[in-house]
Amino acid sequence: MSNFMNLLGAKGRAASSPRLAGAAYELTFSYGYPAVENLPSEAIAQAASKVLRERGELPLQYGGASGAPQFVETLLNKLKRDQGINAKRENVLVTNGSMQVLGLLGEMFLDPGDTVIIEAPTFLGAVRVLINGGANIVGVGLDDEGINAVELRTRLEALRSSGRTPKYIYIIPNFQNPAGICMSLPRRMEVIALAREFGTLIVEDDAYFDLRFEGKKLPTMYELSGGRDVVYAGTFSKTLAPAMRLGWAVGEPELISRMSTIKVDGTGAFSTNIADEFCKDEGLEKNIAKLRANYAQRAEVMLDALTEYMPPGVSWSKPSGGFFVWLTFPASVDTEELVELTRKQGVDFLPGTRCFADGSGRQNARMAFSYVPMDRIPEGIRVIAECTRQLLR
Amino acid sequence: MSNFMNLLGAKGRAASSPRLAGAAYELTFSYGYPAVENLPSEAIAQAASKVLRERGELPLQYGGASGAPQFVETLLNKLKRDQGINAKRENVLVTNGSMQVLGLLGEMFLDPGDTVIIEAPTFLGAVRVLINGGANIVGVGLDDEGINAVELRTRLEALRSSGRTPKYIYIIPNFQNPAGICMSLPRRMEVIALAREFGTLIVEDDAYFDLRFEGKKLPTMYELSGGRDVVYAGTFSKTLAPAMRLGWAVGEPELISRMSTIKVDGTGAFSTNIADEFCKDEGLEKNIAKLRANYAQRAEVMLDALTEYMPPGVSWSKPSGGFFVWLTFPASVDTEELVELTRKQGVDFLPGTRCFADGSGRQNARMAFSYVPMDRIPEGIRVIAECTRQLLR
Repeated sequence: MSNFMNLLGAKGRAASSPRLAGAAYELTFSYGYPAVENLPSEAIAQAASKVLRERGELPLQYGGASGAPQFVETLLNKLKRDQGINAKRENVLVTNGSMQVLGLLGEMFLDPGDTVIIEAPTFLGAVRVLINGGANIVGVGLDDEGINAVELRTRLEALRSSGRTPKYIYIIPNFQNPAGICMSLPRRMEVIALAREFGTLIVEDDAYFDLRFEGKKLPTMYELSGGRDVVYAGTFSKTLAPAMRLGWAVGEPELISRMSTIKVDGTGAFSTNIADEFCKDEGLEKNIAKLRANYAQRAEVMLDALTEYMPPGVSWSKPSGGFFVWLTFPASVDTEELVELTRKQGVDFLPGTRCFADGSGRQNARMAFSYVPMDRIPEGIRVIAECTRQLLR
Repeated sequence: MSNFMNLLGAKGRAASSPRLAGAAYELTFSYGYPAVENLPSEAIAQAASKVLRERGELPLQYGGASGAPQFVETLLNKLKRDQGINAKRENVLVTNGSMQVLGLLGEMFLDPGDTVIIEAPTFLGAVRVLINGGANIVGVGLDDEGINAVELRTRLEALRSSGRTPKYIYIIPNFQNPAGICMSLPRRMEVIALAREFGTLIVEDDAYFDLRFEGKKLPTMYELSGGRDVVYAGTFSKTLAPAMRLGWAVGEPELISRMSTIKVDGTGAFSTNIADEFCKDEGLEKNIAKLRANYAQRAEVMLDALTEYMPPGVSWSKPSGGFFVWLTFPASVDTEELVELTRKQGVDFLPGTRCFADGSGRQNARMAFSYVPMDRIPEGIRVIAECTRQLLR
């Protein structure tokens, strides 16, 4: 082996995230994958051949930072119509999935040792970027209305008194991944005010915005802030297909411009042209309506199965959107141990420790209702419930 | 505007690369775009509908760091067959175009102020990453055999005596972009030996490897080094389509593993499944054979036009592959000025200054024969030649 280790920069040295296990279990509740029946295979095939037939060389040529310009227009219309976000071209960067937004923000903002505040629990894919960047990660707990604002203030004050300004606060306001909470409107405003008071930014990850199947949609933090001090990240991975790798950032023009400079890889004109075609004639709205109904039904199937099979002492969130149910087990059940048992029976889920940066969460688990064949959700939950009983004995 | 500027990390502050102008001229010799007739639109449409029909959910689902596993196998076979590179899965990372390889290397290796050695002139897209990373860029000139090894040693010694080890040496050994030189075999070995002596790495960018239309192919520096101390970057942008955003890195397993950790955005299962299908039944080899013939003819058309129209005192490279001819003008012609004149007549090319990190190259120009409609190459060259005469007067 060469000496390359000596040559690594600060970020290269810090990198140590584990790679996601690729192991396949018969029934996997682990990941936020869309259901097979929700991947619009036929429509994508049609859109692909249509754009290749009708749009000349453009869908195969270099596409610039954001891919096809028409797609950016389509996205701006979608953001206005659905999210209520009024953005212009200079506010938007199309990316290789919303994970790339998080990666670019890490690259732009983080020097090793910098502080970032996250919700605890949160989406550990996002935390991977912070680990790569060598960040000092500070977790703030959740209550029924979202990130705990009292605790957030306490943390911000403590950081200030040690001379530190967090680079940003990473928030998932809708159907929080994994806890399932929707941040209340007053809490959204309170957190924006706190970010301003302490001179930091909010990174608003809204991957599941479109997949609300209950309740009224709330304004985004981006809109509530007047488009200042908030960077908004979205994705087509859940509403079109993960494999298209299409996400986006919305933010202040100067910030988006810098992010575009750092994004050296370009965005595919192929995927963006196809997505643009897919969105035509209300293609996206119709697909989202179908998905909402499907995921609502899947959530119900899972909640019914949990009610039927789980022993007393186990509780869980009631999702109003998104892909996940968040479970809390009695103190005697360690979900790291539990998953070992269920995996032997071909059933996988995400132990809560995978949702905290500090190793806590041993009494928690995240179960995705999005991916396991719908009619097999009950048997999977039954296996997990039986293994839970074993551990309770 | 918010305070985000205060929050930027060292890399965010350094970022200042200009964005490529998107201005469209009637005849553009500026960029390394593939010709319209060389984009296999029909075959890609067929491959897309075939994989969506036959491969179930996989082409639309999450794909992991390198996309479709079959594509990695296909790529390994291609590297062995064409490049003579014997690599295993753990040696390879599939990326969002080879620009992402360069971006990830910058992210891994560069702290602000670190030194990187480049060829002068070179591909300025690669330099953009170095600027983003705040690197100290050291250019080493070229001779007929590639990067000047005497000058390289002198530079390395000077750096050593000031206590510095360059993080890497960025080299384009085949059809050097823009100068068109193919690095000789002895020079390749000499540069590998120098990199080892001074404890640095080589980044070998081989974007045009497959597009050799004259002469014998030479072993890659990656193979010559035994797969040590060299990271090899390749792309399907020239041989399939830029819009697919498919490139790859080949390197030592530990380095590739760290690069995979930093690459948080995932690689598209859609594009990799399509590319895999495209490569079946010698699809890639047949396409490359077609492209070689086409680009050879285009090069000839350009060289003939240059011979016919250019005034005495202008000289140029004779490409044996790739997309470019590199021109040298008499001292009285400033190509920044020249391009202003030709643009008024709808003809664009790349002034040499865009190929040097230090602003030199005012007597040079890069002309891509790859993109302008083949039958219009002569009229474009005629315009440039006429404007050159104006400046010579």
